[in-house]
Amino acid sequence: MKALLIIDMQQGSFTPMFLRYNAEAVIEKINKLTEEFREAWMPVIFIQHDGSAQGEFRPFTQEWELLPELVRMPNDIIIGKTANDAFYETSLDSILKEHDVDELVITGCATDFCVDATVKGALSRDYQITVIKDGHTTANRPHITGLLAVDYFNMLWENMVPTRGQIKVESCREFLAENFSRVS
Amino acid sequence: MKALLIIDMQQGSFTPMFLRYNAEAVIEKINKLTEEFREAWMPVIFIQHDGSAQGEFRPFTQEWELLPELVRMPNDIIIGKTANDAFYETSLDSILKEHDVDELVITGCATDFCVDATVKGALSRDYQITVIKDGHTTANRPHITGLLAVDYFNMLWENMVPTRGQIKVESCREFLAENFSRVS
Repeated sequence: MKALLIIDMQQGSFTPMFLRYNAEAVIEKINKLTEEFREAWMPVIFIQHDGSAQGEFRPFTQEWELLPELVRMPNDIIIGKTANDAFYETSLDSILKEHDVDELVITGCATDFCVDATVKGALSRDYQITVIKDGHTTANRPHITGLLAVDYFNMLWENMVPTRGQIKVESCREFLAENFSRVS
Repeated sequence: MKALLIIDMQQGSFTPMFLRYNAEAVIEKINKLTEEFREAWMPVIFIQHDGSAQGEFRPFTQEWELLPELVRMPNDIIIGKTANDAFYETSLDSILKEHDVDELVITGCATDFCVDATVKGALSRDYQITVIKDGHTTANRPHITGLLAVDYFNMLWENMVPTRGQIKVESCREFLAENFSRVS
């Protein structure tokens, strides 16, 4: 069984002060993916960062809330986390096992922090992983633009040594075409 | 108790075809650190990648061997690994616990593969971590030079959300001055 992870797509990470590369297109792709996963009765899991210990992204503040542009449905699962790695002291692993999930499809923000930490956490837990290469984003960094950072991490993930799981990096279009027959 | 990790400083990763940024200086710093750790009776742990499953870095081949420039001593610990994350299906965690290690000092290669995966594995296991910012290296990538990749990952690690552990990023000189009084 596959599950879709949408990591930290929260209002405080998408502000005019903190532009994310290609944010609108990433949101649109996530909405396409969630629609297909729900249609196929596969879990849609939003990860939501709680940064209380650092004095930011406190639960129920505006910055903590998920982006209003994301389509959400009552059966979606929401899991709070306090570290970069969404597996750290959360119920993610047990919820995935409950749903017989062995394949994770990963999207979200930020590529070089929580997305990467969660991809690596999933690989060390032997999950099959598909990262949607145009479904995650980050900001410009002093060393690299947001655009190049997305490409760089896509390359890194694609070249990681497999565990019992393995990482595939695919575009949203490729992933949908392979997995959902009604999408041509 | 602190332990020093030296990740994948193997001959096959340092060839004329595959130049690593600042390799000689990194080796020199690692040799300084191992000397101080041994002097203080703190564990020196070499991690050595076994890529048999991918048909490379097979045990006892030349590319698998550690670099001859590294000073080694009989009491050093050597741990083989098969994934990027040195904690994956290895005895690293149990050996650290046996030695009452709660702080890892991390060096090695490559910054953006095994060093990063191991730093993240250690953080999710609540270790205190110091990455030696001039004690790890990688190659030029299509998206970023080796020099900038080293700086970029130093910035990323420094800004990760703490678990019960936390990441510090320090130069070899800073680390030695803080931790070994005979180094001025």
